[in-house]
Amino acid sequence: MKLYSAPYSGNAYKVRLFLSLLGRDCELIDIDLFGQDPRLEELRRLNPRGQIPVLVDGERVVWDSQAILAYLARRHADPSWLPLEAGALARVMQWLALSENELLFGLARARAVLRFSRPFDLAACQALGRRGLAVLEGQLQGRPWLAAPHPTIADIACYPYVALAHEGGIRLQDYLAIRGWLERIEGLPGYLPMEGIDPARR
Amino acid sequence: MKLYSAPYSGNAYKVRLFLSLLGRDCELIDIDLFGQDPRLEELRRLNPRGQIPVLVDGERVVWDSQAILAYLARRHADPSWLPLEAGALARVMQWLALSENELLFGLARARAVLRFSRPFDLAACQALGRRGLAVLEGQLQGRPWLAAPHPTIADIACYPYVALAHEGGIRLQDYLAIRGWLERIEGLPGYLPMEGIDPARR
Repeated sequence: MKLYSAPYSGNAYKVRLFLSLLGRDCELIDIDLFGQDPRLEELRRLNPRGQIPVLVDGERVVWDSQAILAYLARRHADPSWLPLEAGALARVMQWLALSENELLFGLARARAVLRFSRPFDLAACQALGRRGLAVLEGQLQGRPWLAAPHPTIADIACYPYVALAHEGGIRLQDYLAIRGWLERIEGLPGYLPMEGIDPARR
Repeated sequence: MKLYSAPYSGNAYKVRLFLSLLGRDCELIDIDLFGQDPRLEELRRLNPRGQIPVLVDGERVVWDSQAILAYLARRHADPSWLPLEAGALARVMQWLALSENELLFGLARARAVLRFSRPFDLAACQALGRRGLAVLEGQLQGRPWLAAPHPTIADIACYPYVALAHEGGIRLQDYLAIRGWLERIEGLPGYLPMEGIDPARR
């Protein structure tokens, strides 16, 4: 497998983390999206959105971090990572939606403002991110994992931008259930760290 | 089944449309999210995000439009609406992601500015929405449906805010493949219209 990635991308890290937990090797192709990387043209041929991550598995090309997580769960992982019974699948999808919404357009965009000088409304992004954190905190009170009694791709999808919240100006001191959940993910066999994730800065 | 909904919500309409295509009856509970609706408290107990749509199916409560589509596809629909083979599932997830990203934060937010006076950056939302439309247009050239040779929940998820694009100030004259796809959806047996969707205003 090959993964088009970038070291600073939380979305690409979701896939790198999951591959690491699965013990799967993958060739990493790091792309500089902000520069003049000659492989940007190649990336755009594989993904019409021109974004990373993109996974190439033999003849198969999959773009979008959550689609890649679902692909890997179905193709290369224990079925528990993506349960398919209607109610169980819906629970996973709910937290994938939170990840794509409050966490990406809230926490990740706040980080993009402070770390990459992107032109988003910082206060609005932080407010949206905090609404997402409040929902996560409520869900994780008394539950070890988001969508099932065991980890699923929902946990993997939500982890990076929560663990990077401080880079968007949001500390997690008061989110005790979230902090415990972050530590449980970091204790999984095969856990892979990411630059910027630092328990001391929560 | 009961669905907490609102007539102007494209996200709730995704579920109403899918239920109609499936020929399923559902009790609609219309909530006024902007007013002092006494059932807002009840909604917040069912959905920690406080949003519609929420589906109640017996003991089961599902929030988030895409989670509800996946739930209904697994529980009450022909399996073709949500194929589970790894590559096929990933294709559906890719377009669900576009729906949650470029379409929701682009097209739907542009509509929210113009129709509900919400305080988003109209030009930025329209630009994001147009990037999503360009990707959809490319995908639909030579393909009848987004993710498979037949309709899937990806088509249902992407349809409403594309069909409502004009309410966000975006006309679809130049998106010929998208226009054909909208008409194919509108020709499906059991198709349900929504207030605001008007082929003459595309």
